[in-house]
Amino acid sequence: MQTTTLQITKCESSKIDQVNFDKLPFGEIFTDHMFICDYKNGAWSNPRIQPYQPLQIAPSARVFHYGQAIFEGMKAYKDDEGGVWLFRPDQNYERINKSAERMAMPPLPKEYFFEGLHELLRLDQEWIKPGIGNTLYVRPFMIASQAGIIASAAEEFTFMIICAPAQSYFTGSVSVKIEEHYSRAANGGFGYAKAAGNYAGQFYPTQLAKQEGFQQVVWTDATEHKYIEEAGTMNIFVRLKDTLVTCPVSDRILDGVTRKSLLQMAEDMGIKTEVRPIAVSELVKGIASGEMTELFGAGTAAVVSPISGFSYEGKRYELPELSKDSYALRLKNQLMNIQYNRSEDPHGWREQVVTS
Amino acid sequence: MQTTTLQITKCESSKIDQVNFDKLPFGEIFTDHMFICDYKNGAWSNPRIQPYQPLQIAPSARVFHYGQAIFEGMKAYKDDEGGVWLFRPDQNYERINKSAERMAMPPLPKEYFFEGLHELLRLDQEWIKPGIGNTLYVRPFMIASQAGIIASAAEEFTFMIICAPAQSYFTGSVSVKIEEHYSRAANGGFGYAKAAGNYAGQFYPTQLAKQEGFQQVVWTDATEHKYIEEAGTMNIFVRLKDTLVTCPVSDRILDGVTRKSLLQMAEDMGIKTEVRPIAVSELVKGIASGEMTELFGAGTAAVVSPISGFSYEGKRYELPELSKDSYALRLKNQLMNIQYNRSEDPHGWREQVVTS
Repeated sequence: MQTTTLQITKCESSKIDQVNFDKLPFGEIFTDHMFICDYKNGAWSNPRIQPYQPLQIAPSARVFHYGQAIFEGMKAYKDDEGGVWLFRPDQNYERINKSAERMAMPPLPKEYFFEGLHELLRLDQEWIKPGIGNTLYVRPFMIASQAGIIASAAEEFTFMIICAPAQSYFTGSVSVKIEEHYSRAANGGFGYAKAAGNYAGQFYPTQLAKQEGFQQVVWTDATEHKYIEEAGTMNIFVRLKDTLVTCPVSDRILDGVTRKSLLQMAEDMGIKTEVRPIAVSELVKGIASGEMTELFGAGTAAVVSPISGFSYEGKRYELPELSKDSYALRLKNQLMNIQYNRSEDPHGWREQVVTS
Repeated sequence: MQTTTLQITKCESSKIDQVNFDKLPFGEIFTDHMFICDYKNGAWSNPRIQPYQPLQIAPSARVFHYGQAIFEGMKAYKDDEGGVWLFRPDQNYERINKSAERMAMPPLPKEYFFEGLHELLRLDQEWIKPGIGNTLYVRPFMIASQAGIIASAAEEFTFMIICAPAQSYFTGSVSVKIEEHYSRAANGGFGYAKAAGNYAGQFYPTQLAKQEGFQQVVWTDATEHKYIEEAGTMNIFVRLKDTLVTCPVSDRILDGVTRKSLLQMAEDMGIKTEVRPIAVSELVKGIASGEMTELFGAGTAAVVSPISGFSYEGKRYELPELSKDSYALRLKNQLMNIQYNRSEDPHGWREQVVTS
């Protein structure tokens, strides 16, 4: 692999003074710069950082017609001394290349991903505010930018990283609908990939759920709707007695970075964990017996999102109030302490981007 | 519904002289103009025809991240007197709105679709060449153009129509792999919608099939891989003895305009038809007994595409040579005669756009 020369064009003046960091809509305001590089003739080239700006793209670009598009979700955190940190970015790098393979897109060289990411964060570090809950949401994504509407894999792609300052994605606990009709992913499909096409199909069923008073949908297996899978932007965890349970990842379920981190942290804390299929009937029984005391989602954007109740087969089930020593809150606090450089990092998950 | 005023900006000079119409790559060369309109604040507005040109679009546009994108595939035909025709455009209009609903996108008013389509074809009619096989491939599509990466349905969209002169999509017969591992669509998913996300996931399995010497994949049910579904850009037909069989459309299978037209034409010709699930085992037995004499795909781009053989469970099966009086060729000829205004049109499928 050749060493690449990253070209940097800085913006003339920052937009940062126009931003109210106390009232950030999620994912609508972007930092001053973006990273971009091109895939053409079988190779990635032209890595560059530019002022954040619109793309010029042919109406026939494959991404508009055939959905060849993948992304990652990451966050950068600032500690109280001004140090900037990423959390397990190696996992995002590995996953975007897994997604790329399944969507017939080219793998991204490690240097492009990490040089682009680090340089962009250094340039826009003022956009990351210290304090728990403040983050910079980092969105690497790759699209089939090639013009031409033949229905086959493109041979030209664009990879970009854009960044949006963020506070928490969900606030408070959410009520979910366990889906019994619509499905997110097929066996043998690409549900495990962080691909654009996995999201658009969720919006309509989620709108229906919202009309019924729920905030999120928990997807179930497409064959029988008997086993829970994931919530579209979150993996799902259940506490049954003292055991923390989550379902295994599969070709239908995203291998979440937060999911695997929580499992490890739970083990570190001496919490018993199980990774096995979870039948919806277990949740229903667990509520009735009182053995199920927690249900929560976990993902980069949402961090840990407690679920207050769910519906299934026309009935609503309520979870008890979360106690301070709930697994959800203990794990969330511990995770954020690691992310914000406020605690030990026994597994080497933090990566420093800017030193304080 | 208000009457809309279509704004037309013509290109300064046509690119048509630079195009070799005898050697057209599919879907790479576009006509001089495109139709475009915007959805914002709950309404469609600003319908306009402009010179074909790149779009300016935010890197955070939802289409790049969450795949909210749908399209249609249509063709315009020129008869020997210079008349220009569409084939059942009402079906495409109805289907794009069905796709829109499932993908949480707004329905398109009939005037926008048809006024845009007709005016565009009148302007670019020189790009449609007479003679069987020459067509103008017409691609209406809608994308979530709204900036912002929150994972929910957009509220701003762009609808466009672009046109590419075309000859036949596939040439000759194709050899197909009946897929036993990967899947195209889930029960309860959006396989029936002409949505971008249904295509990207097919490219990788299709690349694998191509490496094994096949041109196309025939998808099977995601649960057991025992029943054939569709070929991604084509519905599938089988001739068993004297009966023409195709599987029913479902939430996993596109309701193809060519498919339903062939079924009607077959009935008109006195050919017995059956619409029912088709097990792969029937195909295998049909080859062995000699009762299965034809297998073909049908779709707007491919028209009727004979399949010369297929593989399943590691074995390859060959179909006999197609005779001149095969259903595939008779139906194809009859379909094209209707499309090119060379025969009666008993069901009123043709719609004239430009009179000769």
